[in-house]
Amino acid sequence: MIQAAIMGYGTIGSGVAETLKINRESIAKRAGEEIEIRYVLDLRDFPGDPMQEKVVHDVNCIVNDPEVKIVVETMGGVEPAYTFVKAMLQAGKHVTTSNKALVAEKGAELIALAKEKNVNFLFEASVGGGIPIIRSLNSSLTADEIEEITGILNGTTNYMMTKMSVEGLEFADVLKDAQDKGYAEKDPTADIEGYDACRKIAILTSLVCGRQVDFSDIHTEGITKISATDMKYAVQMGRAIKLLASSKKTDDGYLAMVAPFLISGAHPLFPVNDVFNAVFVHGNVLGDAMFYGSGAGKLPTASAVVADIVDIAKHLERNIWVEWSSKKMELVDFARAENTFFVRTSSDKKAIEEAFGKVEYVDAGIEGEIGFITPVLTEGDFADRADTLGGILSVIRVGA
Amino acid sequence: MIQAAIMGYGTIGSGVAETLKINRESIAKRAGEEIEIRYVLDLRDFPGDPMQEKVVHDVNCIVNDPEVKIVVETMGGVEPAYTFVKAMLQAGKHVTTSNKALVAEKGAELIALAKEKNVNFLFEASVGGGIPIIRSLNSSLTADEIEEITGILNGTTNYMMTKMSVEGLEFADVLKDAQDKGYAEKDPTADIEGYDACRKIAILTSLVCGRQVDFSDIHTEGITKISATDMKYAVQMGRAIKLLASSKKTDDGYLAMVAPFLISGAHPLFPVNDVFNAVFVHGNVLGDAMFYGSGAGKLPTASAVVADIVDIAKHLERNIWVEWSSKKMELVDFARAENTFFVRTSSDKKAIEEAFGKVEYVDAGIEGEIGFITPVLTEGDFADRADTLGGILSVIRVGA
Repeated sequence: MIQAAIMGYGTIGSGVAETLKINRESIAKRAGEEIEIRYVLDLRDFPGDPMQEKVVHDVNCIVNDPEVKIVVETMGGVEPAYTFVKAMLQAGKHVTTSNKALVAEKGAELIALAKEKNVNFLFEASVGGGIPIIRSLNSSLTADEIEEITGILNGTTNYMMTKMSVEGLEFADVLKDAQDKGYAEKDPTADIEGYDACRKIAILTSLVCGRQVDFSDIHTEGITKISATDMKYAVQMGRAIKLLASSKKTDDGYLAMVAPFLISGAHPLFPVNDVFNAVFVHGNVLGDAMFYGSGAGKLPTASAVVADIVDIAKHLERNIWVEWSSKKMELVDFARAENTFFVRTSSDKKAIEEAFGKVEYVDAGIEGEIGFITPVLTEGDFADRADTLGGILSVIRVGA
Repeated sequence: MIQAAIMGYGTIGSGVAETLKINRESIAKRAGEEIEIRYVLDLRDFPGDPMQEKVVHDVNCIVNDPEVKIVVETMGGVEPAYTFVKAMLQAGKHVTTSNKALVAEKGAELIALAKEKNVNFLFEASVGGGIPIIRSLNSSLTADEIEEITGILNGTTNYMMTKMSVEGLEFADVLKDAQDKGYAEKDPTADIEGYDACRKIAILTSLVCGRQVDFSDIHTEGITKISATDMKYAVQMGRAIKLLASSKKTDDGYLAMVAPFLISGAHPLFPVNDVFNAVFVHGNVLGDAMFYGSGAGKLPTASAVVADIVDIAKHLERNIWVEWSSKKMELVDFARAENTFFVRTSSDKKAIEEAFGKVEYVDAGIEGEIGFITPVLTEGDFADRADTLGGILSVIRVGA
């Protein structure tokens, strides 16, 4: 019997307890021993909950119990999660977390601390919910140089993009619908401005390059400017608009960004709809691969946390090697990134061609504006030319 | 420096050597040491090849060299691969193989032998080429009871189905095209009759249930009866015909089969086209997930073999636990499997409704025949009713 504790008994934390109960037997078989939750740390009490007897309000109850070997952190946010996780690792306890904010900001440090203490700090659930992308990067795609990793990493915005595409609704209406359905929070900023996806691609890029990628260095645009008219053009082009979080290895280094892209029907991410997430990976030997699944939700995310618990149970005396040093990786200047741009403007064709040269026009039957696709340009060059043109109504990058 | 040997220097074996060379540095970093190929076992010589100096013709050169720690088996077929692999494990060497025939037939035994000798027998490349499905099942999806695993596991037939669908060609024509392009072998039986997919789903089902599933127990139908007319009906229904290899956990036990299915646009496997493979997994906690990538090909398959080499290098002194005992798993009698069937017949509606009751008709504008979809029936019941009806031109199961 291995003793564990859960810090933060919200959606994910209670999902972890539920998963350990539902699949008790098979998990014990795979872990080699039964996993028992000894403590649940939360500010609240949970009268009537199966875990009510295990609730504690003081983190030191867990820190000071030497029998607790595995600690699950599902509180969210950097503090106090960071302080608590650090204390657990320092006390020689293994930790698994679903907390992308914590991992993106403190991942390298906590990995190093875990290594020093010969315990494990795992975080499969911090990116892509139930999709096992982190363990795949760390232990399956090890023969490859990963040249590109591009994901639909936020279920809320993907739900909204799908709904706008299918029903022709405006952004504000689908946001309200997503909030009514509980997919978007009351303050939806982190999702719709791309901040959530940004932290996740920062984590994946750090794992791919083995060094610290600061999420604040990643150019991030959300979906708030996408309109029903943009969707009409997308349909006309046979493309879908998806919020992509992407990082690519170039000759000059790693380039990362989060922004809406128009992707073609041939792209593996094209059919990924609703709240589903997916991660596309291109390796120099493997070629293209994609991982698809529920990117959020109580049980899918808990599935990933519990898989970490099982992995830890199999490595109680041994640190699993993760390459992510605290040495900072400087990303390539975003102004040098090359992209193709779809632009809507109230200017005329003469002005468009003066600014961009030969372009490809897209006619979606919208009066009073012109849609066109630029040649490949650097972001810096595009911004300059767009300034010259003026009258810009919308800009969306065109993906593969 | 870890010494390794390759047995079988064909497409995959030479791909392994190439991958180790291309990504030498990053692989050494992840493995902890450089991997050196000391021997290449093959009946042939390879003058001018970078490996020419390493070619040996006697397996005992490898067996008797105590410095060789890792052996790659890429010969294919059960014998002599089985004898050679067994000798390697008995000599205390770790083995990785891409050989589905060997793994499907002797997997349980070789896993047990590896465990006894405290070495590893890994086989990521035996299913789904570069798709890391086996390591995901063994070490990522460990919180779940896997209730369904359904794959497009054969690239050749998926290429053919895609081509028939897009171009309206007949089976014989796309087979010839696939042979011309090198996707199908001169004797294409193993692919088009579903035998290849059958061995792969036998392996996956064994891993899911932890016991030996004999491939010969799995009901297997190929794609040879699929016609251009069937494809017209599929288009009419908004469905695609895919050769699916599937296993499901039912209350009575595991049910496995390989057959063409009509799947809807909503199914994650629907957009998987050409030579790509994909594996759909449903876990009781995880929900739906899918893994997509190159199911075959020199480098994608080599990527999976080399990932096994890296994993072995990190576990040179330790057996990685794999649950697959030699105790035979009896599958549920196929006659009891429940399915929905699309049928084309030259009989009339009266006869159809006498045999099947209320059905759903599909009109694809084909003269002289009627297409319809049955209610859910057991395979046994369907066969009986189809006999009563007569005049059957085609039967394809209808998937989700």
